Amino acid sequence: MKDMTMALPTYDDVLKARDRIAPHVRRTPVMTSDYLNDLTGAQLFFKCENFQEAGAFKVRGASNAVFGLDDVQARSGVCTHSSGNHALSLSYAAGRRGIPCNVVMPRTAPQAKKDAVRRYGGTITECEPSTSSREAVFAQVQAATGGDFVHPYNDPRVIAGQGTCSAEMMEQTDGLDAVIAPIGGGGMISGTCLTLSTLAPEVVVYAAEPEQADDACRSFRAGHIIADDAPVTIADGLKVPLKENTWHFVSTHVRDIFTASEEEIVEAMKITWKYLRVVMEPSSAVPLATILKNREVFAGKRVGVIVTGGNVDLDHLPWMAG
Amino acid sequence: MKDMTMALPTYDDVLKARDRIAPHVRRTPVMTSDYLNDLTGAQLFFKCENFQEAGAFKVRGASNAVFGLDDVQARSGVCTHSSGNHALSLSYAAGRRGIPCNVVMPRTAPQAKKDAVRRYGGTITECEPSTSSREAVFAQVQAATGGDFVHPYNDPRVIAGQGTCSAEMMEQTDGLDAVIAPIGGGGMISGTCLTLSTLAPEVVVYAAEPEQADDACRSFRAGHIIADDAPVTIADGLKVPLKENTWHFVSTHVRDIFTASEEEIVEAMKITWKYLRVVMEPSSAVPLATILKNREVFAGKRVGVIVTGGNVDLDHLPWMAG
Repeated sequence: MKDMTMALPTYDDVLKARDRIAPHVRRTPVMTSDYLNDLTGAQLFFKCENFQEAGAFKVRGASNAVFGLDDVQARSGVCTHSSGNHALSLSYAAGRRGIPCNVVMPRTAPQAKKDAVRRYGGTITECEPSTSSREAVFAQVQAATGGDFVHPYNDPRVIAGQGTCSAEMMEQTDGLDAVIAPIGGGGMISGTCLTLSTLAPEVVVYAAEPEQADDACRSFRAGHIIADDAPVTIADGLKVPLKENTWHFVSTHVRDIFTASEEEIVEAMKITWKYLRVVMEPSSAVPLATILKNREVFAGKRVGVIVTGGNVDLDHLPWMAG
Repeated sequence: MKDMTMALPTYDDVLKARDRIAPHVRRTPVMTSDYLNDLTGAQLFFKCENFQEAGAFKVRGASNAVFGLDDVQARSGVCTHSSGNHALSLSYAAGRRGIPCNVVMPRTAPQAKKDAVRRYGGTITECEPSTSSREAVFAQVQAATGGDFVHPYNDPRVIAGQGTCSAEMMEQTDGLDAVIAPIGGGGMISGTCLTLSTLAPEVVVYAAEPEQADDACRSFRAGHIIADDAPVTIADGLKVPLKENTWHFVSTHVRDIFTASEEEIVEAMKITWKYLRVVMEPSSAVPLATILKNREVFAGKRVGVIVTGGNVDLDHLPWMAG
């Protein structure tokens, strides 16, 4: 396993990533809703990464890693651990390059995400839903397969890939005052900070997190990484802790981290399905949930909201009984 | 009530409509899915009119009618009968112009659609879910209010407005072999035929209809309008019969009309929510349902699919129990 401690990508890496992944990712649309603008008092610009073929922004970082491998490295394939969207995005990218992909996923990951990994040709090994189990099982899988480890967020190739999203968003909007994205391990937030600190340093970056997995928020307040082992939240993509590389961006570039309760997340998810008419997963609804709670921060501002993913079990929607 | 018998719009009316409605409607995105292309063997281009602010293509025709009124006519407002999307779209357009809007809706119309009418400032009078009841109640409402009757589809202003959708779609795609849209009263199909017969006469136009409301299909085969009084289908937008103006376009320009069962419609709806990640209503899923059934017609073709609306009761999704 490579040591990723403080291997920070640069904006030049974002530019290279953009060229490298262009054939494999979509320039997703930015959507607006007069209703949601009225509701929040802000002008919201939703960058819909759920419309990537694999249904998540993670395909940007995954494609940058996979297509950056030289042919010798590529032969052994790639491997990772992930609650879902990185796993399926890496499988998608590996499938496009025709190389093996082994992923370790918690057995509790949404069925839709497991199905997608298999559809794209990835191989799943299940672990318990805790950081400790995930890391132990992954060490075995990596030793057995010899694949290149593409960490879901602490990898500089992944952060640079995620940084291409906000570069696109800046081109698609006529200036923004702020950008807000969900935070789990911090890959998207780090890529966003990396890109905007060069491209548009005046844009304030906020992160949004479930109250029930608020380790990033507590880390931010404490000034050092705090990691929870097995948080429980409907926002399944946001359970993982910050790591060295993402902590760098979070601690130096993020203005604030807001949290929302499970109920507030489900309500925001339902509101966006209804008024924006996009299928987003619970994690992606956390930013709107926090905007609705912190109206005074966002009112009157032009705010980019990164919709991170749309891989949902339609048979088990959180507002339905059972 | 004005006599709309054979008052046919021209392509010039479409061009005028386009300028007139530009400030009030969105240029909606065209979306694709590799998964759905693999599934159908076709290249599908989904024109997502569900992303209009009011959630339906109907805002095009409604805006064309409302903003085409002179100031004297506008003072008495507008009125209509509709199962939902025309009602809320007309309310939306009337609200933007600041004029009254009275609508007659079946009491069984989806709650989401009734809520939207009221949110936009429209006034609802309920009727029974049959053509006969709707027409009787509407006559009373129209006599009482004196509003300009904007028929949901048989009105040339409405057909010209709907025709702006396929004009956009042709600009957004690099050539199409066919276009398919749901058919209820035939407003969207008529606008599509009107525009494409001038702009791209080589593009074949198909219509898609629920088996349980297949009056347009039977009319097409019989060579004259057949109207059912109270069909029952989950595709609530497609229960109304053809009228003179739309029959003209359907009988002269449409290549074929395909039908799908209720089960097939729900399955297609769920597939698009899952893989395209857009919230579309049952009516909008009928085209994909018929493409899946008639693979040999569409395989290898570049097919524009008009996603007509996305106003859904999220608490009562058709694949959930209860």
